[in-house]
Amino acid sequence: MFSLPVWPASVPVSRNDRHTLPVPRPTAAADPAGGRTGPYDADSLLRVVVPVFNERGYDGTRMTDLARAAGITKSAIYHHVRSKEELLRLGVERALTGLFAVLEEPAAREGPAVRRLEHVLRRTTAVLLAELPYVTLLLRVRGNTATERWALEQRRTFDARVAALVAEAVRDGALRADVDPRLATRLLFGMVNSIAEWYRPGRGHAAGPITAAVEALAIDGLRQRA
Amino acid sequence: MFSLPVWPASVPVSRNDRHTLPVPRPTAAADPAGGRTGPYDADSLLRVVVPVFNERGYDGTRMTDLARAAGITKSAIYHHVRSKEELLRLGVERALTGLFAVLEEPAAREGPAVRRLEHVLRRTTAVLLAELPYVTLLLRVRGNTATERWALEQRRTFDARVAALVAEAVRDGALRADVDPRLATRLLFGMVNSIAEWYRPGRGHAAGPITAAVEALAIDGLRQRA
Repeated sequence: MFSLPVWPASVPVSRNDRHTLPVPRPTAAADPAGGRTGPYDADSLLRVVVPVFNERGYDGTRMTDLARAAGITKSAIYHHVRSKEELLRLGVERALTGLFAVLEEPAAREGPAVRRLEHVLRRTTAVLLAELPYVTLLLRVRGNTATERWALEQRRTFDARVAALVAEAVRDGALRADVDPRLATRLLFGMVNSIAEWYRPGRGHAAGPITAAVEALAIDGLRQRA
Repeated sequence: MFSLPVWPASVPVSRNDRHTLPVPRPTAAADPAGGRTGPYDADSLLRVVVPVFNERGYDGTRMTDLARAAGITKSAIYHHVRSKEELLRLGVERALTGLFAVLEEPAAREGPAVRRLEHVLRRTTAVLLAELPYVTLLLRVRGNTATERWALEQRRTFDARVAALVAEAVRDGALRADVDPRLATRLLFGMVNSIAEWYRPGRGHAAGPITAAVEALAIDGLRQRA
């Protein structure tokens, strides 16, 4: 019924290689172009470049911008990755890994569907707060490249798995039957995803109350109960 | 407590001139540059240019792009407005006018706070669905120009007025007291605003069920009640 989904799904790389580099990392001395590779490995390079993607937009970011932000040469970046798109893939993959791991947690797999849904909402919110730049990157992909289209497909898969959980809880009689499960899932993840627009760690935003508020509002709404 | 709010507020132009043009509209014959002004007035020109802003981003849109989309010359656009920023202002103003008008409706001003809040949620969702391109534009402003900063300030004002309504309903005992009213407002409008990411009129999305779902989830949550 709906054309574009709201959230993430299964990571296409094995757990073992998901954060490792696709090419060997030479030392600075071995850099034929003479560029500094700097103190970076894949994780620390991503920590620098993903905020640049989020700030300028992926399309608007050039390798030159990334090199400047990292304080290394473009050729040094090419020792780490083959292309800008590979950096995008690594950043998006990190978000997807965290989000899909939530669905594999015991509390997301066992027990009544409504309990599993509560767990998934609370934990995906926690992943968003903990992995903010990577989830922000994931939420902003537009579909202009193969990597972006793959990321959108993963979001659709994640969305569908949560919608199935909502539908199961509706069949159990635990959740209301008058809201379409896919629409409900979109609206709930719309609420969760919107946190990325304003949450900034260390600026007086505590993660705990946000996570609790999401779960409370999603399941029980704002109304005071007797 | 929170750094960046989630939504709109009061329109700074009078009701009488808010959709009129700041400069006289010459006819095509009177265009000294010989450009076609086309069949446009302010409203129809906005209908063409606002989707271009949304597609390319305001920063990434040049007057040339707008002229091409409208099928008229740049100089013809300058008969309508003084600048690209003025087109942004007119587009954002249209969204704000609709949203702030909701707060002035009798059902938003009279009766128990929780009823007024329900009305505001339902009606702001309806305005988003009806004025989708303009509200989308408003939601994407970034603060790079005076007009954008003004729009963000309006969003903060709107946000504060709704948060005050939530706080009043909490004091009445109608809404739960364990979620901060400003956080609740942000999350609820996060849910509402997210609709702009996927709703496309005429693609099988009916407005009625969406509006009803927002109100139901916001106030009562997903849980089935006895």
